[in-house]
Amino acid sequence: MKEMMNPSSFAASLKASLFNWRLQGKKGVWLKLPIELSDLVDVAKKEGFWYHHAEKTYIMMVYWIPKTPSTLPSNASHKVGIGAFVINEHEEMLVVQEKNGYFAGTGFWKMPTGLVEEGEDVCDAAVREVKEETGIDAEFVEFLAFRQYHKALFSKSDLFFVCKLKPLSTTVTKQDSEIETAKWMKMEEYCEQSYVKEHEGFLSVAEICKMASSKKNAYSGFSANLKSQRTPGKKSYVYSSASNI
Amino acid sequence: MKEMMNPSSFAASLKASLFNWRLQGKKGVWLKLPIELSDLVDVAKKEGFWYHHAEKTYIMMVYWIPKTPSTLPSNASHKVGIGAFVINEHEEMLVVQEKNGYFAGTGFWKMPTGLVEEGEDVCDAAVREVKEETGIDAEFVEFLAFRQYHKALFSKSDLFFVCKLKPLSTTVTKQDSEIETAKWMKMEEYCEQSYVKEHEGFLSVAEICKMASSKKNAYSGFSANLKSQRTPGKKSYVYSSASNI
Repeated sequence: MKEMMNPSSFAASLKASLFNWRLQGKKGVWLKLPIELSDLVDVAKKEGFWYHHAEKTYIMMVYWIPKTPSTLPSNASHKVGIGAFVINEHEEMLVVQEKNGYFAGTGFWKMPTGLVEEGEDVCDAAVREVKEETGIDAEFVEFLAFRQYHKALFSKSDLFFVCKLKPLSTTVTKQDSEIETAKWMKMEEYCEQSYVKEHEGFLSVAEICKMASSKKNAYSGFSANLKSQRTPGKKSYVYSSASNI
Repeated sequence: MKEMMNPSSFAASLKASLFNWRLQGKKGVWLKLPIELSDLVDVAKKEGFWYHHAEKTYIMMVYWIPKTPSTLPSNASHKVGIGAFVINEHEEMLVVQEKNGYFAGTGFWKMPTGLVEEGEDVCDAAVREVKEETGIDAEFVEFLAFRQYHKALFSKSDLFFVCKLKPLSTTVTKQDSEIETAKWMKMEEYCEQSYVKEHEGFLSVAEICKMASSKKNAYSGFSANLKSQRTPGKKSYVYSSASNI
């Protein structure tokens, strides 16, 4: 198959296929080209295809045959991140200073943050990031809040989940490549940082964290409940404030 | 510029640039090619570039110069969807049957659902989808729960938010292209559907909805609080169960 796919034979076969599909009343055409066949991208574009999405090893191109507007589903639109509020019994929270990024060199102590990987549960991502950045073992308790940003990296939107975690170990061992320094810090001291006080989003999250760490149980977030999915054998989490549903 | 960018001159200039960047100790190289220059994709691939992501009108290719593993950020990993629980004062919820998709032709009555668009706030997406699918005006009250799926469309992950909405109108006018039929249905009748009873995820969401619709206020979800963002002039929502923080 592959050796037949030189640009000119591919152009001829694509033209013929499109002609037939049009007669058959087909609508959307998906064309997935592995990166090895990158010389065919230009051929498909000349036939009227456009880009849909790409991953490391392939590009997906599409064509919409009818005169009506395309109803092809769009690609992934969001990155998902977590911030981990790890609070111990002395009301100390786990904080880091990063080597790179927005807060590098500012002296601002922040909670460990990171991106949820494709296929990873949000609650697991928080536990993983805390372990990676600080060496602390922790378990997920609940989501305290989340926030949505727009026009982030590559113009995509961003969902950021603030998770409460319970630490299972105490000794901080910071990661060298990304983290400048990491430690336990009195909750009050975290909240007193001018950056927190001056930025509405940070301030409201800090106040929610304060409520969620008080002994009075003044706050109820969303906890994780594992459920069977429609597809047999698959499981997924439903997060809600009903802890046993 | 554009006329200079024939494949052979582009190959020569890319080779020279990579040579210089290597000497200068550069790390990641981003190459954004508009679809009009699709004949250069193959050239970049031959120089060792690979695909990072693509949107309708361009492809982004990347190259990592050092011998160390690439630390280039990944592309968007999630689609975000909403389900709208619109409940009126007679304990009737707004339900639809879809023309296409998983439940088409099954007779299953479901809540209106849809995808959050890039740049759209999740709470607004729920209001928009309800209006589009059923003609009902509604306002966002709170998030009741959310769920994460993996290996959805294009292998991406999926976050699905269940939103409670308060209806502001009563007359249902269903959308013709996607919706087979739409109506108000007694909450109990919705829950009695065998599909709901037999699927853990649907059942737990139905039970949360029941709690959230009871007059006793037996459930507290996450409400929306508009906050200023770090970037001056920009606003974003913090969703939490603290309604006034």
